[in-house]
Amino acid sequence: MPDHDPTAPPPPADDLRIRRSPARARYDRETVEAIVDAAIVAHVGTIRDGSPVVVPMLAVRDGDWLLLHGAHAAGTLRRGRGTQVCVEMTLLDGLVLARSAFHHSLNYRSVVILGEAEMITDPGERERALELFVERLVPGRWAELRPSTEAELKQTAVMRISLERSSAKVRSGPPMDEEDDYEWPVWAGIVPAALALGDPQPDARLRDGIEVPESVRALAGTSR
Amino acid sequence: MPDHDPTAPPPPADDLRIRRSPARARYDRETVEAIVDAAIVAHVGTIRDGSPVVVPMLAVRDGDWLLLHGAHAAGTLRRGRGTQVCVEMTLLDGLVLARSAFHHSLNYRSVVILGEAEMITDPGERERALELFVERLVPGRWAELRPSTEAELKQTAVMRISLERSSAKVRSGPPMDEEDDYEWPVWAGIVPAALALGDPQPDARLRDGIEVPESVRALAGTSR
Repeated sequence: MPDHDPTAPPPPADDLRIRRSPARARYDRETVEAIVDAAIVAHVGTIRDGSPVVVPMLAVRDGDWLLLHGAHAAGTLRRGRGTQVCVEMTLLDGLVLARSAFHHSLNYRSVVILGEAEMITDPGERERALELFVERLVPGRWAELRPSTEAELKQTAVMRISLERSSAKVRSGPPMDEEDDYEWPVWAGIVPAALALGDPQPDARLRDGIEVPESVRALAGTSR
Repeated sequence: MPDHDPTAPPPPADDLRIRRSPARARYDRETVEAIVDAAIVAHVGTIRDGSPVVVPMLAVRDGDWLLLHGAHAAGTLRRGRGTQVCVEMTLLDGLVLARSAFHHSLNYRSVVILGEAEMITDPGERERALELFVERLVPGRWAELRPSTEAELKQTAVMRISLERSSAKVRSGPPMDEEDDYEWPVWAGIVPAALALGDPQPDARLRDGIEVPESVRALAGTSR
């Protein structure tokens, strides 16, 4: 369990402050951005008819903003601009196997972003967002695609939220057992975990003579 | 994009009904349970001081209930029994690379569970929950561990929510392009994705002479 970095900004006094396991908290923007850039799916919480709702959305960072894509975006914001949301993104890094059940844990990096989400309505900004989403999944792919049409950009639902009010939480490293338990005769350690990409599977309707491009081939065996 | 199974129960008329891409919706319990059993992390949404909050928690199914573990559990429920929550779990299965940016997508299986969460307070039930969490991560590990103490069970924060009000959403299969686009000269298809476990890394303080047990060795190369 890493200690809090003494050079990091002090924890905020408001609702972003991490109350549980504060030693795992990170409030510097660099850590937040690294986690956002490594994750693909964001879990977006809103309030609908007085009840909490959480939906998964594709996410990509654009400078100081997080862009969120998905059919849900329109529904989330149907009540207009300035919908209050909580966006959470989590990367699972490993299983932490201790000598007691109590000290079993997960290694992870997670981010929480609070703020107001707004729809992106400008067609040019929507096109730029689509480009960022595609390039996030496969760097270099945008230039190879059939260009977007006006009708498609009209239907593209993208919302954005500022990264200004964000915090991160990180657990890494070995299990932390009770001192007496280190003699208990059981294996202990970490089982690493990561989202891994496999070999590309061509569409059955792929045009004859089209090979897997380097942009796609390079993904196999990597984590995103 | 699979069609809705005609033998499945009809979509509910209330807030569980999936409004976006309804052809991807599943309302049968079997599908919900299979997704819950394959995922490790749940994204738990609540309302705190009038604002949405989403936190990641370790989750495991116990029959008709989902058990949620984490330091957050206590905080989520500090306002007492019957806290309304929305739990979302998502497995990312692949990147869907179409001929146009607009039709790029993700293959995934996701579940949403609505209901009231309650803390588990009985020490025996808490011990059973701990066992389920440990066995979820490493089948066979519970019996090898130093037994739990009364003090540990008192500190273990577990909450549960019924699976009664749940729905699933699944996208699988190839990209669905515009008919005219199948001639566009770009590779299209799927890049599979899965959470993969790696080789176990022993704790630096591991007692001499303890080998990696079969229970842990069996995890490497599998997805959870």
